Amino acid sequence: MTQTPSHETVRVNLGERSYDIVIGPGLIARAGAEIAARKPGIRCAVITDRNVAAAHLDSLMESLATGGIEAVPLVLEPGEKTKRFDELVKVCDHVLGARLERGDAVVALGGGVIGDLSGFAAGIVRRGMSFIQVPTSLLAQVDSSVGGKTGINSSHGKNLIGVFHQPDLVLADTDVLDTLPIREFRAGYAEVAKYGLIDRPEFFGWLEQNWRDVFAGGAARIRAIATGCQAKADVVAADEREKGARALLNLGHTFGHALEAATDYDGRRLVHGEGVAIGMVLAHEFSARMNLASPDDAARVQRHLSEVGLPTRMADIEGELPATDILMKHIGQDKKVRRGALTFILTRGIGEAFVADDVQADEVFRFLEEKRGS
Amino acid sequence: MTQTPSHETVRVNLGERSYDIVIGPGLIARAGAEIAARKPGIRCAVITDRNVAAAHLDSLMESLATGGIEAVPLVLEPGEKTKRFDELVKVCDHVLGARLERGDAVVALGGGVIGDLSGFAAGIVRRGMSFIQVPTSLLAQVDSSVGGKTGINSSHGKNLIGVFHQPDLVLADTDVLDTLPIREFRAGYAEVAKYGLIDRPEFFGWLEQNWRDVFAGGAARIRAIATGCQAKADVVAADEREKGARALLNLGHTFGHALEAATDYDGRRLVHGEGVAIGMVLAHEFSARMNLASPDDAARVQRHLSEVGLPTRMADIEGELPATDILMKHIGQDKKVRRGALTFILTRGIGEAFVADDVQADEVFRFLEEKRGS
Ligand SMILES: NC(=O)c1ccc[n+]([C@@H]2O[C@H](COP(=O)([O-])OP(=O)(O)OC[C@H]3O[C@@H](n4cnc5c(N)ncnc54)[C@H](O)[C@@H]3O)[C@@H](O)[C@H]2O)c1
Ligand SMILES: NC(=O)c1ccc[n+]([C@@H]2O[C@H](COP(=O)([O-])OP(=O)(O)OC[C@H]3O[C@@H](n4cnc5c(N)ncnc54)[C@H](O)[C@@H]3O)[C@@H](O)[C@H]2O)c1
Ligand SMILES: [Zn+2]
Ligand SMILES: [Zn+2]
Repeated sequence: MTQTPSHETVRVNLGERSYDIVIGPGLIARAGAEIAARKPGIRCAVITDRNVAAAHLDSLMESLATGGIEAVPLVLEPGEKTKRFDELVKVCDHVLGARLERGDAVVALGGGVIGDLSGFAAGIVRRGMSFIQVPTSLLAQVDSSVGGKTGINSSHGKNLIGVFHQPDLVLADTDVLDTLPIREFRAGYAEVAKYGLIDRPEFFGWLEQNWRDVFAGGAARIRAIATGCQAKADVVAADEREKGARALLNLGHTFGHALEAATDYDGRRLVHGEGVAIGMVLAHEFSARMNLASPDDAARVQRHLSEVGLPTRMADIEGELPATDILMKHIGQDKKVRRGALTFILTRGIGEAFVADDVQADEVFRFLEEKRGS
Repeated sequence: MTQTPSHETVRVNLGERSYDIVIGPGLIARAGAEIAARKPGIRCAVITDRNVAAAHLDSLMESLATGGIEAVPLVLEPGEKTKRFDELVKVCDHVLGARLERGDAVVALGGGVIGDLSGFAAGIVRRGMSFIQVPTSLLAQVDSSVGGKTGINSSHGKNLIGVFHQPDLVLADTDVLDTLPIREFRAGYAEVAKYGLIDRPEFFGWLEQNWRDVFAGGAARIRAIATGCQAKADVVAADEREKGARALLNLGHTFGHALEAATDYDGRRLVHGEGVAIGMVLAHEFSARMNLASPDDAARVQRHLSEVGLPTRMADIEGELPATDILMKHIGQDKKVRRGALTFILTRGIGEAFVADDVQADEVFRFLEEKRGS
């Protein structure tokens, strides 16, 4: 591509499955040219949701047409509930109905919901087609579009069904975030901060200083997104299929997923990144409780996330939460359970997260009982 | 395992995804011990169909229990129509409902339908679980249980949705074939003969001499199955994800799939292997028509398959076939189409199959028009 100084490219190194994440402004307008240059003759099915379609589908279709790329769009309902079997069938039928072949691409234009669902479809139609991500939420740009995890939810839990299917290209247009509801921007920001908390303490410090500029747009936003992508790309390259180190990316997520399940995945009450924000604070506090980390670090995390406007306490969630034993059930059902023992990502301090696979359920229960009121 | 002289083991070499196919009598009774020895502590979901359950589920459950392996069975309706999304959801729910983890196994006890469906579920639940095949049809033992192709059908065509997911172990109990309806045994035999026709002319000659013993059971059956598995394992090792050489395994399948579609996948009219038998004869005859091979080879193939009792002509199918342009549509919809040109497996003679990716649709049309009456 023609690099302009305002763009950053992060390479995800996975052997023959390696790919670029291009980050910067105006990328939707250039998508047709970018894709045509890399994959001449390709045809596409563009999967998106109603919200994103309203703001960006026309530009993308126009850009693809300009690049000489034939494309058929499918617009789904927005929201986590779209990550289900019925919708997966719809996407597969759309792709097959368009008579796309193995080398043709499914293009995901949207947030993590569209990315996870479309990526799963791309992974199973004809046992694997090309896949291109055009992530439009902050969360999708720094997290879900990178690494090849795709999937849908089941009545038994979130993301329990899916495949690993790497994209061939990710185009993260930082301008599109301007149409993202601020609440969703904040939710994505929780995942940005997560990379600092896992193993980049200086990045967390930088965010504490510069978060207002990240929210405002421009160079700081690009830098934050590129740092997030790089952090995720590093972990993914080390552990593509989540057998070890990749588990660190679940910091805050075991608690977070349980809270999402407990609120019935109702985005009005809690969106994914908000669950993660509360979950990360809980993970730090639980680590302090276990004498693994200083309570000061937990307080610092809570302070920063709440400063940007994220919920950080279970009590911040509107409405009643179910009883703690129901929360525990959601935690037990989480896919990170290994033969009985609970696995959590805990921490020794900011930037020092680690995998703890011997966490006692009753300790967690007592901790949640106490925290839910505060 | 304790090898007895009557057993053969074929190794499928796929790096860290390598696995054994064990072939011989009495393996269901030993399945619990075999699995427990390889995967201590594993739990299983056993997926099967009503026909197979009636004959063999109790023995397998007993054998697993004896090996100390906890297992929960799910019995589905028999038949190709079971390879659909609804049933996939049922299997996934069953596996998740049993709270199996990534290292636990989905066990397919059945023919290719159960193997393809369960393997797909194993490939997507928790983004990939262990998978063990206990194939009970001849077709499944020599073909569908080997190589990791899994999937379901779509309204757009057969096997259009699925994943590559290799099993960890295949236990092919040659005794169970004694309860298989003879028609199904014959259908599986078509796939056995296919390996001879692809690139093992001496094996085809051996089958012409010894097919009665293969049908009768005993050493010839084990030898035929092991040769078939070895042939398939060789191709799969060379081309795991069907980018090239593996396409040869589709000899007879483009015509065969079109005939299956044309008969609405109604097993009373045509089962998969029967479609393949007719398809292989057509592929040889079309190759002769194109002056690629001698008509004598086509005649020899037709003679042998019809001697064992397989249909070899479109006219052998009961009931009306749709018009030739509908057949052509099914051929065009087949996943082996690449950017418009038709890809067929053609041959230069017995044991000399090759991939032809420039087959003209109108030649095929004329050929089918003429052949359908004969
Ligand atoms: N695959 C992974 O590795 C991975 C990682 C993290 C999260 N996830 C998944 O991602 C999902 C959450 O992603 P999300 O937060 O992007 O949710 P989302 O896709 O639901 O998007 C959030 C909301 O913002 C809207 N939206 C998105 N982009 C917009 C834009 N530019 N302008 C206006 N509106 C826009 C959407 O319509 C939606 O209403 C969850 O399902 C989660 O499980 C996956
Ligand atoms: N994955 C692959 O690589 C691959 C390769 C070839 C074929 N296939 C698929 O395999 C399927 C055909 O397989 P199939 O012919 O085994 O069909 P099948 O599974 O429908 O079995 C045929 C019939 O025999 C019955 N049966 C099976 N074993 C029995 C036993 N021991 N005793 C009594 N009854 C028994 C079944 O209930 C069924 O009625 C097709 O869907 C085809 O697409 C897949
Ligand atoms: Zn997340
Ligand atoms: Zn076949």
